Amino acid sequence: MASIGIYGSLGRMGQVIAAEMGTMGARLAGGADSRDDPLPVAEAADVLVDFSTPAALTPHLAAARAAGTPIVIGTTGLSGEHHALIDAAAGEIAVLQTGNTSLGVTLLAQLVKEAAARLDAADWDIEIVEMHHRHKVDAPSGTALLLGAAAADGRDVTLAEAGVQDRAGLTGARSEGTIGFASLRGGSVIGDHSVVFAGEGERIELVHRADGRAIFARGAIRAALWLRSQPPGRYAMAEVLGL
Amino acid sequence: MASIGIYGSLGRMGQVIAAEMGTMGARLAGGADSRDDPLPVAEAADVLVDFSTPAALTPHLAAARAAGTPIVIGTTGLSGEHHALIDAAAGEIAVLQTGNTSLGVTLLAQLVKEAAARLDAADWDIEIVEMHHRHKVDAPSGTALLLGAAAADGRDVTLAEAGVQDRAGLTGARSEGTIGFASLRGGSVIGDHSVVFAGEGERIELVHRADGRAIFARGAIRAALWLRSQPPGRYAMAEVLGL
Amino acid sequence: MASIGIYGSLGRMGQVIAAEMGTMGARLAGGADSRDDPLPVAEAADVLVDFSTPAALTPHLAAARAAGTPIVIGTTGLSGEHHALIDAAAGEIAVLQTGNTSLGVTLLAQLVKEAAARLDAADWDIEIVEMHHRHKVDAPSGTALLLGAAAADGRDVTLAEAGVQDRAGLTGARSEGTIGFASLRGGSVIGDHSVVFAGEGERIELVHRADGRAIFARGAIRAALWLRSQPPGRYAMAEVLGL
Amino acid sequence: MASIGIYGSLGRMGQVIAAEMGTMGARLAGGADSRDDPLPVAEAADVLVDFSTPAALTPHLAAARAAGTPIVIGTTGLSGEHHALIDAAAGEIAVLQTGNTSLGVTLLAQLVKEAAARLDAADWDIEIVEMHHRHKVDAPSGTALLLGAAAADGRDVTLAEAGVQDRAGLTGARSEGTIGFASLRGGSVIGDHSVVFAGEGERIELVHRADGRAIFARGAIRAALWLRSQPPGRYAMAEVLGL
Repeated sequence: MASIGIYGSLGRMGQVIAAEMGTMGARLAGGADSRDDPLPVAEAADVLVDFSTPAALTPHLAAARAAGTPIVIGTTGLSGEHHALIDAAAGEIAVLQTGNTSLGVTLLAQLVKEAAARLDAADWDIEIVEMHHRHKVDAPSGTALLLGAAAADGRDVTLAEAGVQDRAGLTGARSEGTIGFASLRGGSVIGDHSVVFAGEGERIELVHRADGRAIFARGAIRAALWLRSQPPGRYAMAEVLGL
Repeated sequence: MASIGIYGSLGRMGQVIAAEMGTMGARLAGGADSRDDPLPVAEAADVLVDFSTPAALTPHLAAARAAGTPIVIGTTGLSGEHHALIDAAAGEIAVLQTGNTSLGVTLLAQLVKEAAARLDAADWDIEIVEMHHRHKVDAPSGTALLLGAAAADGRDVTLAEAGVQDRAGLTGARSEGTIGFASLRGGSVIGDHSVVFAGEGERIELVHRADGRAIFARGAIRAALWLRSQPPGRYAMAEVLGL
Repeated sequence: MASIGIYGSLGRMGQVIAAEMGTMGARLAGGADSRDDPLPVAEAADVLVDFSTPAALTPHLAAARAAGTPIVIGTTGLSGEHHALIDAAAGEIAVLQTGNTSLGVTLLAQLVKEAAARLDAADWDIEIVEMHHRHKVDAPSGTALLLGAAAADGRDVTLAEAGVQDRAGLTGARSEGTIGFASLRGGSVIGDHSVVFAGEGERIELVHRADGRAIFARGAIRAALWLRSQPPGRYAMAEVLGL
Repeated sequence: MASIGIYGSLGRMGQVIAAEMGTMGARLAGGADSRDDPLPVAEAADVLVDFSTPAALTPHLAAARAAGTPIVIGTTGLSGEHHALIDAAAGEIAVLQTGNTSLGVTLLAQLVKEAAARLDAADWDIEIVEMHHRHKVDAPSGTALLLGAAAADGRDVTLAEAGVQDRAGLTGARSEGTIGFASLRGGSVIGDHSVVFAGEGERIELVHRADGRAIFARGAIRAALWLRSQPPGRYAMAEVLGL
């Protein structure tokens, strides 16, 4: 039975991961939070899962490298410098970094990329709409941006070029090739995302609905179980699904 | 058989109205456009339908008053001055002005108002999302604003107070009592509108989908047939449905 | 602070009700299950909530009448005989019986009834589609039937006359005035319901999505808090919302 | 400029195809209906499109073979014998037969197959729901069956084994691996299809909405333009999109 160590063990995701792993054939090697030394957990675990803060990434990666333990990073809000740290660590250990650990979202992103590659931008417009609970403080969601990046990738453009995040007032007609984003906030919605491909006389909608946070925990555990037997390198969720 | 006169007879809506009225028990009294004298049509018709431009409202209302002919006004983009003109005309003739002549939208607005009145703003958040074709140049749609006004009305606030039209970047948590708008643009979509009431653990969604422009023409004709037997005064679409 | 007694206290709903009442200004008077005497709980409580089995309804109503305690009945699968028992009890105590205690569903049913009353059956077809988790053993759901009954009521017909529950094979064209049902089963879906009004060129969809079972518990508690100050009689959820 | 001959030229689809081809760089070579000799059209055209009746398939294929002209077959209701005829013709000419000529549906079927292949049947349930206008006489739609077959194909089963077409009454819990169908009928809906993959705590929905019949005509024309330069053989819509 594989043992998993958790960084950010007192956070909401850390707790759900600890609660779910028993049903998935894994056991808890230990947990660490901001005030703990991360090395003992890294040494005790077969694989690590990190849902903490960007500031803690440096010591967490250092501990993982020192112990030679693969690590799944689900912490959000990473900068370019953080990604450079991850790339460096991936020379020595297996690292999987992702903005969304749900298997459903991972598959959806693949389908979005494929649809965007097949549907000509002159004929099909792409719009992404997401809804989250009333407490969320930023928009669009990281997952909406992840889906938008998949769409842009399918069209061989970047989201920086193609993304449009506000559509209010006298906007003028839609510009060809853009990828629009819209965000709804309300109630306790965990997270719904729709990617709409709108053509002349027809629409394709690719939708994901999350009904609870356990899917993110279970996806992270599945990623960890897969990652522990991989050689050093940087990996993505799509590879866990064999996409 | 009632006879209907059309102002804006060469426009897209004017043409669809002319095409549809035969199946609804009405006949065309005549049409006028920007270069025509509006009075002969007003004199020949039992009731007028106006889908033209704000600039033409003054001569059109003057002709209707001179002939004593009721008038349905579906022209959009009216200012406060235009509404004052309509109120003045309504002292002499029956006038029905509306931002959307669809019976489905009219009913939906009534349901939205009722839901907003029943669902406490502290517990339920209201979000409105609409999608229209790629050629539409403004956002949100007039119908989205009409539905938002119905929601605000149900809560005894105004849309000017409660409406939020952009949600991008670091928005902070949602403010209680606000009514959010989001707009999607793409393809050839005639017009889809959803009003979402999101509470703790549940959502109500009130949705309208338009599959063609004929619904607006038929709603305008039905409004005209109803209006021609009303006494002077200002009316709304809801009254046509008996709401 | 009002005290609530629970019949079916060991069942899933009974437990969620006990867990939620503290946040809603109520306290637990006690609980009883199939092997307990229901009378002490009825005597100790200001109001009772019953989510047990049809077989237990007779002793539960007898206890409530003996103690003079109002009772909310959320037990499903009741027969005509059970309803006669409830009517008899309502001569002495306040009784509220409902197939769905969610406030959202209660409001939706009201909106469905109103829409059905306003939209002519010759022009608008009504279809109800619901989705529930893979473990549900019957179809359509009780809530779908409740919404269908609201639609039938709005049209002054009965669901027994208008309802159509299977649509597969060579069905022929749709019969005017029917109300169709369709059921999806899969995953862990708590319960989604859509009532579609389809006209020529437009659709209205009235949708409810339940994201967790707590909404049913909270609705039952709210109903109990309202019911305890009502005179004897039989009540419905709509009255709790003032509909 | 390619010239297209139409079999079933007086039918609804035949007329729309004739109307649309001018905007797509094709011209009408001629049309034939049930009382016409099909050979002159086959000889005059670069490629044929057939939206007629199963009974006419034999003479239409004979004419196409005699003239050596590729043919797109969109006629529905074909039997096993018809498919054997098509296979025989495909030894001499290029033949593309399909139940749905929409490019959006063709792509969606591919995405459905891929999702079904990736999502374990033990964890994810597949349900397909479609809505069509009130005049449709059979259920589920041919397109729903086409999407179901794509899902079954992704799971290496057949729709005959996995498909479930009625879900009403005491159904019992859902059987693992089944693919459920539900059909809604109402109004003037051209055709909406949703394929739902429901897992524990999350759902993926893959949706197609047709807003008009021109998409089927344009897809048939695009298929014809592609087919005319193919060698003899039997082809499918997916190949037109390069899937």
